[in-house]
Amino acid sequence: MEFAQIVKKRFMCRSYEDRDVPDEVLDRILDLAVRFPSAGHTQPQEFIVIRSEDTKYQLARAALDQFYLAEAPVVIVVVSDTRRSKARYGERGEKFYSIVDGAFASLLIMLAAVDAGLGAAFVGAFDDDEVRAVLGLPKAVRPIGIIPIGFCAERPQKLPRLSKEHIIHYERWKDRAEFA
Amino acid sequence: MEFAQIVKKRFMCRSYEDRDVPDEVLDRILDLAVRFPSAGHTQPQEFIVIRSEDTKYQLARAALDQFYLAEAPVVIVVVSDTRRSKARYGERGEKFYSIVDGAFASLLIMLAAVDAGLGAAFVGAFDDDEVRAVLGLPKAVRPIGIIPIGFCAERPQKLPRLSKEHIIHYERWKDRAEFA
Repeated sequence: MEFAQIVKKRFMCRSYEDRDVPDEVLDRILDLAVRFPSAGHTQPQEFIVIRSEDTKYQLARAALDQFYLAEAPVVIVVVSDTRRSKARYGERGEKFYSIVDGAFASLLIMLAAVDAGLGAAFVGAFDDDEVRAVLGLPKAVRPIGIIPIGFCAERPQKLPRLSKEHIIHYERWKDRAEFA
Repeated sequence: MEFAQIVKKRFMCRSYEDRDVPDEVLDRILDLAVRFPSAGHTQPQEFIVIRSEDTKYQLARAALDQFYLAEAPVVIVVVSDTRRSKARYGERGEKFYSIVDGAFASLLIMLAAVDAGLGAAFVGAFDDDEVRAVLGLPKAVRPIGIIPIGFCAERPQKLPRLSKEHIIHYERWKDRAEFA
């Protein structure tokens, strides 16, 4: 699909049809997602692909009871192995680049899902240690996002957005007192 | 351009032609980039668009002397106003969602640049306070990435990547002792 169309179609899908995502479709999403950029090509990002109903339910619990994510036939958890970021860049690697890099991979997954005719969402609200316990992640591996993927069962809501004039500054920051 | 093609073409461009990016091309990039997702639709992301040679030079200095970025005709600095993230989500908003959200917007800009036939890069190594001083950012506004955009003057380098087998786990984390 055209990139511009994907960007316009993407939204956070919070309800999924009871319909499977074939492995070959999932593989196409993953083939694109592994082309993520990363700080200094440290590649801290890894993916846990989950189809188990029990694991999805436990993840939904760890995500502050966001049970809609367990509806999706596939859930991908993006994690960053902060050891790779920290070894090269110290604290900025651990607390900044590893998060940026995980978010890059997460957005690629979401866009690739839309490209495949599916819906996806990014769940960032969860208890890190509970997610670690569910998936067996070492302490240094930080969960970044829980991404349900499936055939979306809802229409996009049109959420109001801050105007371009608010968001885009030229040459220098301007305080937007008029928007405050 | 097809999304898959963009993902495959994207690379970190570190040298730019002495050739301008027309305003209408830049506007098309910005029109796509402002469609970023954000945690709870808090929209902390804002962009500073820079064409001034002097400001680009100062940003390159703040970015640990990465002077190649000043070669690009346009530089977009993505920032997150952490006040919006913190007001809703406290410390996790300030130190996690605001970074994730800024990275989402940054990747959209980079992909939109490739879609427009341009090159881009993500510079995350900089002194936050120096960037704040150059752009007049309030303390609560965190710079996430400095993104040079222009006609790329170099070919992509083929960097080796971790294998899919290394990166992708099924159902549960598996320690990759064999790759360590």
